[in-house]
Amino acid sequence: MIVAMQEKATEEQIDAVIEAMEEAGVDVHRTTGATQTILAAVGSTASLDLSKFEVFPGVLHVHRISAPYKLAGRAFRPQGTVVEFPNGARIGGEQVAVIAGPCAIENREQIFETAARVKAAGASFLRGGAFKPRSSPYAFQGLGIPGLKLMREAAEANGLLTVTEVMEIAQIEPMLPYTDCFQVGARNMQNFNLLRELGQIRKPVLLKRGISATIEELLLSSEYIMAGGNYDIILCERGIRTYETSTRNTMDIAAIPVVHKLSHLPIVGDPSHGTGRRDMVGPMAKAAVAAGADGILVEIHPNADKAASDAAQTLYLDQFEKLVGELRVIAAAVGRTL
Amino acid sequence: MIVAMQEKATEEQIDAVIEAMEEAGVDVHRTTGATQTILAAVGSTASLDLSKFEVFPGVLHVHRISAPYKLAGRAFRPQGTVVEFPNGARIGGEQVAVIAGPCAIENREQIFETAARVKAAGASFLRGGAFKPRSSPYAFQGLGIPGLKLMREAAEANGLLTVTEVMEIAQIEPMLPYTDCFQVGARNMQNFNLLRELGQIRKPVLLKRGISATIEELLLSSEYIMAGGNYDIILCERGIRTYETSTRNTMDIAAIPVVHKLSHLPIVGDPSHGTGRRDMVGPMAKAAVAAGADGILVEIHPNADKAASDAAQTLYLDQFEKLVGELRVIAAAVGRTL
Amino acid sequence: MIVAMQEKATEEQIDAVIEAMEEAGVDVHRTTGATQTILAAVGSTASLDLSKFEVFPGVLHVHRISAPYKLAGRAFRPQGTVVEFPNGARIGGEQVAVIAGPCAIENREQIFETAARVKAAGASFLRGGAFKPRSSPYAFQGLGIPGLKLMREAAEANGLLTVTEVMEIAQIEPMLPYTDCFQVGARNMQNFNLLRELGQIRKPVLLKRGISATIEELLLSSEYIMAGGNYDIILCERGIRTYETSTRNTMDIAAIPVVHKLSHLPIVGDPSHGTGRRDMVGPMAKAAVAAGADGILVEIHPNADKAASDAAQTLYLDQFEKLVGELRVIAAAVGRTL
Amino acid sequence: MIVAMQEKATEEQIDAVIEAMEEAGVDVHRTTGATQTILAAVGSTASLDLSKFEVFPGVLHVHRISAPYKLAGRAFRPQGTVVEFPNGARIGGEQVAVIAGPCAIENREQIFETAARVKAAGASFLRGGAFKPRSSPYAFQGLGIPGLKLMREAAEANGLLTVTEVMEIAQIEPMLPYTDCFQVGARNMQNFNLLRELGQIRKPVLLKRGISATIEELLLSSEYIMAGGNYDIILCERGIRTYETSTRNTMDIAAIPVVHKLSHLPIVGDPSHGTGRRDMVGPMAKAAVAAGADGILVEIHPNADKAASDAAQTLYLDQFEKLVGELRVIAAAVGRTL
Repeated sequence: MIVAMQEKATEEQIDAVIEAMEEAGVDVHRTTGATQTILAAVGSTASLDLSKFEVFPGVLHVHRISAPYKLAGRAFRPQGTVVEFPNGARIGGEQVAVIAGPCAIENREQIFETAARVKAAGASFLRGGAFKPRSSPYAFQGLGIPGLKLMREAAEANGLLTVTEVMEIAQIEPMLPYTDCFQVGARNMQNFNLLRELGQIRKPVLLKRGISATIEELLLSSEYIMAGGNYDIILCERGIRTYETSTRNTMDIAAIPVVHKLSHLPIVGDPSHGTGRRDMVGPMAKAAVAAGADGILVEIHPNADKAASDAAQTLYLDQFEKLVGELRVIAAAVGRTL
Repeated sequence: MIVAMQEKATEEQIDAVIEAMEEAGVDVHRTTGATQTILAAVGSTASLDLSKFEVFPGVLHVHRISAPYKLAGRAFRPQGTVVEFPNGARIGGEQVAVIAGPCAIENREQIFETAARVKAAGASFLRGGAFKPRSSPYAFQGLGIPGLKLMREAAEANGLLTVTEVMEIAQIEPMLPYTDCFQVGARNMQNFNLLRELGQIRKPVLLKRGISATIEELLLSSEYIMAGGNYDIILCERGIRTYETSTRNTMDIAAIPVVHKLSHLPIVGDPSHGTGRRDMVGPMAKAAVAAGADGILVEIHPNADKAASDAAQTLYLDQFEKLVGELRVIAAAVGRTL
Repeated sequence: MIVAMQEKATEEQIDAVIEAMEEAGVDVHRTTGATQTILAAVGSTASLDLSKFEVFPGVLHVHRISAPYKLAGRAFRPQGTVVEFPNGARIGGEQVAVIAGPCAIENREQIFETAARVKAAGASFLRGGAFKPRSSPYAFQGLGIPGLKLMREAAEANGLLTVTEVMEIAQIEPMLPYTDCFQVGARNMQNFNLLRELGQIRKPVLLKRGISATIEELLLSSEYIMAGGNYDIILCERGIRTYETSTRNTMDIAAIPVVHKLSHLPIVGDPSHGTGRRDMVGPMAKAAVAAGADGILVEIHPNADKAASDAAQTLYLDQFEKLVGELRVIAAAVGRTL
Repeated sequence: MIVAMQEKATEEQIDAVIEAMEEAGVDVHRTTGATQTILAAVGSTASLDLSKFEVFPGVLHVHRISAPYKLAGRAFRPQGTVVEFPNGARIGGEQVAVIAGPCAIENREQIFETAARVKAAGASFLRGGAFKPRSSPYAFQGLGIPGLKLMREAAEANGLLTVTEVMEIAQIEPMLPYTDCFQVGARNMQNFNLLRELGQIRKPVLLKRGISATIEELLLSSEYIMAGGNYDIILCERGIRTYETSTRNTMDIAAIPVVHKLSHLPIVGDPSHGTGRRDMVGPMAKAAVAAGADGILVEIHPNADKAASDAAQTLYLDQFEKLVGELRVIAAAVGRTL
């Protein structure tokens, strides 16, 4: 932590800040310039609420000088994390993963047809939602555990792994038999109680960036899970909210190389939520892979127009197959395989 | 719902859209202009996923033409909602409510001293947090139910009502004896399962706007609670995330008159979270009341500098007393009492 | 400037940064902590491009520790700036100024009727636009200098001062006889050549915040004008662009107390552009005055519905008169006069 | 234009809106539903200020149903625009263009060395700034016309075309001999007078998206230029301002496919301004090309660390050469050449 004092700060004000810093348990190094005094705290400030120094009289600014996360930082695992699944599939490393399926599991036929095509396209992960709390209380809300059973059957029939969203702590236990990777949705990125519980299990977690979360906050949320001992985390960029309305969200492709620089965790891109439009999914999936994404999460449906939710952003199965072929070429162009 | 077709849309494309609209259960009125065709669906479209028509070939734009909420709309209760508490206190109507207390309940002395001063200032509501999930896993996490017991004691000793945040469904039941008004925090504004449960109880809910939620989404979330039969909802503007960093959030004061126009629900302002800075709380509290807020939610602490959380935005008790006096004058200037 | 090195930065990397800092002309103070090294440059860094140090190997973050502006800073004139006009009117200080008129000057009748009512309401400033570049090339573009002549006549007939927007350098000279205060619009806030020229004249400048400008950038733009010797600057908050669409812009009321803290310059609020809606102008004007605004800029028109531009946000003359009365009460409530 | 009335709108209110619409010169088609009335104006509304209908009593919402631009729309030239330069180079079509050079032209050696390397890498366009108004009045402001002469010499010596920024109308004429393509910077995207003048010349214009401009506003600005008869326009995505601070701007990669869908104009990506960080330029350049960009605009400098401006985002010449090689592979992967 650095406290920069105002030019006219008095000795009394400076002393008050030093005292408060020491009381907070850090060593203070003082640099007195011709016009301005700077107080540096070199020591662990991860648990300090820095903003409280901001409002001390005579203080100009307070700067944090170390990242607020530890386990999520690149330095913790410079070589990068590769999440391994029981059947040998991986996310992170050379391979670019494809995770595909419907927004909501609707019925046996839908999920089996989808699973077969996911497999045929060469992907390893089947996704599908069973709990669908929606922004309107009047919309379809998901099949629940019976839906997950259907997905598990369809996945096993095709040698796929399952990825599905967990909404609250009470769902973790019943979901365990059907879930190879727990997805935490954007709205739950800062549901810290849920994150803490997911730190206690030993299955990978796919953590989506909140719609207005910074990259730093995303890493801090992953830290919550890792603090419990579960290091198998896959981050996901799925678009942030900006003033632009021609796409549903603004997919922050730069988050991919930024995460790779700051953290050891793999990150995948979700062009379906990132754009909200079927016709933009392809270009943005390619952009994500070109920027270094470790995988792609994409919504597909045998009858996309009639999907029970997110129809507008859902690819037809034929479109999906074509896209995977194109992504394979892009992946090769950046030295990866898919 | 209005579907505006592109200028060059073919009859085939138009027919396909009409068919899909009819299949979705609405009547279609077609207006054929010299250059453009418009399809209007007059009927209930609240449960329709409009965006799916957006990606039909030949479609330019789809517009929703009725509000997506019903119970929260002004028309449902043109006279406005006044939330009444057992002891006769009200939020909504002529009175401007003051809800004050520490971010986190820390100990008996802290909450009793605060309660006495809240009462002395003429306010009716004591707030305090018992569950404090924080963005860093290394920070203070709250006292839990024992903290709520302390707050209830302090409130009763001073004839105050309690307002406190509920984080998850499992907390509702144990919190009931200690809570006069359940606060839903910004991060939970779209925790629809929690909202649905709060629709089942018969105590008022103070619903905070999410950090990147639109006003429409806030009203839609209130609809979730009202759909369960609990109409005693107080909305709260607490700042949204923008690119400006000189305040922690950008307090969207205009949300206050906008909510009053669109909805019958009362809305209060939270200048503490809205600015994140003690020195900005006063001006923004006044601005909120001048713009028509039905109350103010403000963080105060006997020893603000040493508050266990949110210290930077917390007022000293003396500052609070002075502020309430100033707000009383502003309230009078806009024809209200406080 | 503070350069915080990464935990694993090598001595070589640290030396390279120190060398580059010294080459840039500053003294470097090094603090070596147990885990991290910090380099502080105490000296003038106003002309340094700090971001270039950000990408040196081994650097974690670079922090500016002094404000990038000097003349605009509060310390330059702790007592605050009061802009005085030839007829004795002032902006800044105890008085709250009202600046009102049509978006665009349309004809003699319109501007004379408006001027008479502005005067009758007790205001001192008549505003009106003569050059109206619009976002659509197919819309009304303003009357030009003949329009300004009409406004000057109307102002003089009523003892008012004129405020009008300058769009480019070539307009300054011809506008001088008709203009008491040059307004710089949001789109020109960073038209640095224009700002520099306005620094050379000796008439007040009303500088509007850009639609996506930070408060710091607004102050830096005012510095451009002041650097030329023209210190009579009035800042203006007129709304920023955010994701919220229920108002045209999000009026950042907090910018008013923030500017008062950081700078000595007066700041007025523009609720017309701040909201884009006639029905929101009143509440937001009151909010601005309650938060400490030094004045209000408001669009009015004898026949608001038919205004050639910005009709939706323009008040009728009756609404304006009523609003000024209400603002007078709010001004009194915060210890000011209007 | 569609006017959706409120559910409780009276016949009187509906009639008032119909009258005002007719007065504005459009035909009105009325659809009366069970609960709501809809008024559709089918006719040219490009010059109408729609927002003024928004505040009529009884109106719920007003929707524009046709794009506000005409010449820029895809329908105007379904086959797409290819901008051709005198020497046969093109932007648009199969080829992916590379435009590279320093932020500011500093001296002969710098620009000649850069030009030689741009050519060697296989690119066709040399960029460089001569007028550099900076956000701080205390920073380097550019060499002016003498700088352009140097760039022209360097370009001719290597068979390159020049791209350089024009800041104001008065610069167009003197710049003409040295400029093959006029760049309009983000801050001038809505400098409508400048755009109109550029519509009168017959050289291509590279129009950058404003830092908070929507894609629709970008297209509307291009319309200003085209309205003068100059159809040789290249759009440029260079990042927008959001709340995320880990990159200087958020590069909206999705703008590339969105522009391709809405308009016939080519669009290039500027990863230097889009990220502000040298280490992010590569991944984002690749992402842009993968998403379909018609070219890349990139800042390079023989001594990037010491560049007079934008040092942090400027590539070394070696990095640039490597990047062009990588982009060539990506271009091939999406069926283009570079």
